[in-house]
Amino acid sequence: MNLNKNYSNLQDSYLFSEVSRKVREFKEKNPSLDVVSLGIGDVTLPLCPVVTQAMHDAVTEMGNADTFKGYGDYEGYDFLRNAVCGYYAGKGVTLGGDEVFIGDGAKSDIGNILDIFSSDNTVLIPDPVYPVYVDTNIMAGRSVAYMSGNAENGFLPLPDNSVKADIIYLCSPNNPTGAVYSKEQLKSWVDYALENKAVILFDSAYEAFVQDKELPTSIFQIDGAKKCAIEFCSLSKTAGFTGTRCGYTIVPNELVHDGQPLGRLWFRRQSTKFNGVSYVVQKGAEAVFTRDGLAQTMDSIKYYQENAAIIARALSKLGIWYTGGHNAPYIWLKCPDGMPSWEFFDLLLEKANVVGTPGSGFGANGEGFFRLTAFGNKENVIEAMRRLEEMRFGT
Amino acid sequence: MNLNKNYSNLQDSYLFSEVSRKVREFKEKNPSLDVVSLGIGDVTLPLCPVVTQAMHDAVTEMGNADTFKGYGDYEGYDFLRNAVCGYYAGKGVTLGGDEVFIGDGAKSDIGNILDIFSSDNTVLIPDPVYPVYVDTNIMAGRSVAYMSGNAENGFLPLPDNSVKADIIYLCSPNNPTGAVYSKEQLKSWVDYALENKAVILFDSAYEAFVQDKELPTSIFQIDGAKKCAIEFCSLSKTAGFTGTRCGYTIVPNELVHDGQPLGRLWFRRQSTKFNGVSYVVQKGAEAVFTRDGLAQTMDSIKYYQENAAIIARALSKLGIWYTGGHNAPYIWLKCPDGMPSWEFFDLLLEKANVVGTPGSGFGANGEGFFRLTAFGNKENVIEAMRRLEEMRFGT
Repeated sequence: MNLNKNYSNLQDSYLFSEVSRKVREFKEKNPSLDVVSLGIGDVTLPLCPVVTQAMHDAVTEMGNADTFKGYGDYEGYDFLRNAVCGYYAGKGVTLGGDEVFIGDGAKSDIGNILDIFSSDNTVLIPDPVYPVYVDTNIMAGRSVAYMSGNAENGFLPLPDNSVKADIIYLCSPNNPTGAVYSKEQLKSWVDYALENKAVILFDSAYEAFVQDKELPTSIFQIDGAKKCAIEFCSLSKTAGFTGTRCGYTIVPNELVHDGQPLGRLWFRRQSTKFNGVSYVVQKGAEAVFTRDGLAQTMDSIKYYQENAAIIARALSKLGIWYTGGHNAPYIWLKCPDGMPSWEFFDLLLEKANVVGTPGSGFGANGEGFFRLTAFGNKENVIEAMRRLEEMRFGT
Repeated sequence: MNLNKNYSNLQDSYLFSEVSRKVREFKEKNPSLDVVSLGIGDVTLPLCPVVTQAMHDAVTEMGNADTFKGYGDYEGYDFLRNAVCGYYAGKGVTLGGDEVFIGDGAKSDIGNILDIFSSDNTVLIPDPVYPVYVDTNIMAGRSVAYMSGNAENGFLPLPDNSVKADIIYLCSPNNPTGAVYSKEQLKSWVDYALENKAVILFDSAYEAFVQDKELPTSIFQIDGAKKCAIEFCSLSKTAGFTGTRCGYTIVPNELVHDGQPLGRLWFRRQSTKFNGVSYVVQKGAEAVFTRDGLAQTMDSIKYYQENAAIIARALSKLGIWYTGGHNAPYIWLKCPDGMPSWEFFDLLLEKANVVGTPGSGFGANGEGFFRLTAFGNKENVIEAMRRLEEMRFGT
């Protein structure tokens, strides 16, 4: 028996474990100090009341012989697929329920979608980036090309026609940079994909954080995208579902290669290796898309947005370059005084007792940058920014 | 961009859709007739009270800021992994929590585990069989060899030392045949795997139905199995979780190839392409393994076992050859009078208004056989057997 040798080409992801180790050691040495974390990439506010009520009702149904549900459809219940269509209608995007596939999270679907593509495709991935785009392709032995995100392009790389790619990853609003593509910028990617017969894998997990009305929250708001893109979204950050697990993937019926509708291949993959999402979870997800659900989840997002605004204001005041924050829960800043990412991490921990995430952990282009997140408690965010301002960088 | 061409080698699984079509047409033509289905492969009894109570409590926790849970561990919460260890201790199998991986169902894990193996392995699969073993390997372009299940070997094929296989699928109690390997038979598979450096993928999804004390309910009850086997199990049939979604995969620490612990590779796969099972579902699953949970779920299993016994008694009385039933929810019978599977299906539907599943849909060796399931309502099962007895086969 032979193992998949591509796994030995994976780099150990030591970013978050290294952060944890350093924080733990610092706290052990300094038990009296109050350490504030702005490094967390997970929501902290609870599920909203309409969601928990829907889940309670569903659990009760599951305990009653007359309303019990066994196997659901692999691609999700119609009630939830239709609710997602209604949500997209609000964005001006018309979808059929058969173009919506319910899954247990964007990460699972983004990894598993690769099953339907040949391993000889060339993959184009931004740097810095969410690490699973790279790792899932290395596991399959695919050749990966990188496109540079940097301060000059606002960490929003655009197509380079001299580069030939088959599969392109875009994440907007971006993790880790918080940068958001404009409609014009996304249009240039759609044009590139159509010309090169490439497919765009569009990760819109943070779309609910977009505040500027003119920015796109779905790639399907761009003409032509239905012929070249698959969109992955999740309720993790929209409605606090990181521990509840529900997402959805949009494969438009117009997306056809070599005469094969990609939605049909994805359904074949899912029906063979997946058995659908828990009924109780799907009922909770449906509640998110009701009028009350959208209002209640938006209250939580506003709380995080206010945290992001507090961080952004402090960085502006300090004259520190950053992107993100206004339309994303992430703030991506240039380390002051030209410091490398880990040096700034150590300094911030030692002097301000504040924890963030070194940008170099997200790719070579992240060196010299640093990620702060808005998912914490507001009082802690205010306190962290007060300490940051006291550090008087560059003076 | 190139698609995965292996998908075009998949055969359309038309078995259950064809059954549905024929039943629908029959009902349209005969609206006054009462059609009874013994074809259903899904549980029908609701979740038991301790499980729904645990899920209600968990939903309440998720709605409260102080007890809210975000991302859990990729491999599942310790409380559930330890509960699974306790369940295995009751089988005489000692496991560490780090050998247990919680997933959303045995089907997902059985499909996804293939990620860690090279595509140049030779796979050995019984015929007849649960179709996803074959399809998941065809998707990856692996070469599949079949081993014959038949009436002579009781649909329990044993190793053939002239065949060299790298990955071996065993399902016991078996779907679709209901046949169960003895300890001696499983030992011969473990010996074969150790000698050939093969890995056994052991599907024990129906283990809770085993009534005979001397039959194994886990491959790890066999000496040496921890060095060559991975076991997949699920709460779907044990506790009615088909619509709730929770399973577990056991990768023993002793299972090492080329110096690589397979558990570490599986963790790498799961941490990259999966984000864990819903907290609410894991709390429900934990409740299954409590004393009350085991007692309550066993009540449901006994109900299905009684159905199986009713079917088995009727077939014995009619002199029809069958296997399964006593230690499995499936009864696999030889079609009377040498009929092919679909001919018997049509006859049973027309004359007795009873629906089952043609054995030929599970592989070439299933031709001439037929599957009945015990998941229905007891009154319906009794009525279906009364009608079967009235048909007077072979007389």
